[in-house]
Amino acid sequence: MKRSVFFISDGTGITAEALGNSLLAQFDGVELEKITLPYIDSPEKAAVAVQTIQAAAAQDGVRPILIDTIVNNEIRTVLNGCDALKIDVFSTFIKPLEHEFGIDSSYSVGKSHGIVEATRYKDRIDSVNFAIDNDDGARTKQYDRADIILVGVSRCGKTPTCLYMALQFGIRAANYPLTEEDLELDGLPESLKPYKDKLYGLTIDPFQLAAIRHERRPNSRYSSLTQCDTEVRYVEQLFKQQQLPFINTTTFSIEEISTRIMADRGLKRRIN
Amino acid sequence: MKRSVFFISDGTGITAEALGNSLLAQFDGVELEKITLPYIDSPEKAAVAVQTIQAAAAQDGVRPILIDTIVNNEIRTVLNGCDALKIDVFSTFIKPLEHEFGIDSSYSVGKSHGIVEATRYKDRIDSVNFAIDNDDGARTKQYDRADIILVGVSRCGKTPTCLYMALQFGIRAANYPLTEEDLELDGLPESLKPYKDKLYGLTIDPFQLAAIRHERRPNSRYSSLTQCDTEVRYVEQLFKQQQLPFINTTTFSIEEISTRIMADRGLKRRIN
Repeated sequence: MKRSVFFISDGTGITAEALGNSLLAQFDGVELEKITLPYIDSPEKAAVAVQTIQAAAAQDGVRPILIDTIVNNEIRTVLNGCDALKIDVFSTFIKPLEHEFGIDSSYSVGKSHGIVEATRYKDRIDSVNFAIDNDDGARTKQYDRADIILVGVSRCGKTPTCLYMALQFGIRAANYPLTEEDLELDGLPESLKPYKDKLYGLTIDPFQLAAIRHERRPNSRYSSLTQCDTEVRYVEQLFKQQQLPFINTTTFSIEEISTRIMADRGLKRRIN
Repeated sequence: MKRSVFFISDGTGITAEALGNSLLAQFDGVELEKITLPYIDSPEKAAVAVQTIQAAAAQDGVRPILIDTIVNNEIRTVLNGCDALKIDVFSTFIKPLEHEFGIDSSYSVGKSHGIVEATRYKDRIDSVNFAIDNDDGARTKQYDRADIILVGVSRCGKTPTCLYMALQFGIRAANYPLTEEDLELDGLPESLKPYKDKLYGLTIDPFQLAAIRHERRPNSRYSSLTQCDTEVRYVEQLFKQQQLPFINTTTFSIEEISTRIMADRGLKRRIN
């Protein structure tokens, strides 16, 4: 029996999705159909949403789950017309916060974004540009401006991690691929030596590396298990010899890699 | 009077931060110091966190706010030793869900990630690679594989939006910069014509565009208000003439631009 879950928001829906997915992941064996309804920012749009929700309920033969981060009371009232289990984040937690702060909250639609966006936008763009300009060892002149420089073999996850740190946290992250030539050196490549304090290593299971490289260049030396195994062994030796902090990315998501590195190095987000 | 807010998680802390920031944004004029404590995944780490929290409370002279997404009961018990207002997401919402599903939840640490990560990782990497390979009109041969192709003048927000859609949703997003030469044409550039259905326009306030371009190339023709104004006027004419959907990015965050475009085009996330 399938059951529909709706993530409903007056904004992007990203918070409702993240919270809802975390909660629902605690339930094994329940078959769920997840639907996000973002930008429900008027009673009219809420009325359309109610129709969608009721149609799903009729098809499922069981009442749906609503996980919402709607702030506005008028909109919420319309949604309350549905027969559903409602996980209602704002009305649950706003009251205790009002009591604690001793003031009323501003129950306005989409309040969590707005005024700060212009600065935030600029900082994010700067960080994204920095990550792109300093991707894959493309240049090393800007390393003095970097918050962190990720090092590791080709395709171990450096680029998406740098981009994620830039977009999510405004961190200026560069990355440098350690190639076979680099790994034959005794020590770090010259261009990295002055920035040893900013270096953070990524490593990866050789089997997974071979699978990822195989997608890019099938049946090549580059993607062979022997080659991947050798490179990973060399790179881990280098990290240990140089006493660089490093993380094995094999079982981690990009969010986890990024936040673990930041926690380990005490890097603070530049945007909120 | 400053008050400390702690976002506490056994994982990345991203959900706790997103939820907490949305709630706290409803309170104007409250001075808050926000601290994220991620990866609190053992009672020992929780005990260290409690010390941090209590030290902050002593300094503030007022009890702190804890916003947590901790799943494990043992860890939660340690955190309950703090005198604080606790916004306790899991224990609040898990019970009604257990009741609704008629089964117990698996109260395991960090359960929301794990098994699905390998596939998710690969899909994300593919999308990120796609975004990078197809950034800034670098190539147009892969447009048949694109989910969406963003078009707009230089520095209007195309690249970060594409990267965000790739990382967050696994969407394959390409982008093509409409240059002066393109805008002098009568109609779309040749390389875009076969993909008209995938095109989505971005536009921006000329003043903001000039400010952004000024950062890149100060006091240039490229960053002059006259130039920005002309380009924006041309590009909006083109969007209207070609009946392309478009969005003005000026007041939106990257999350908002991405999710609005996806909602408008009915694009579904490829990763969960």
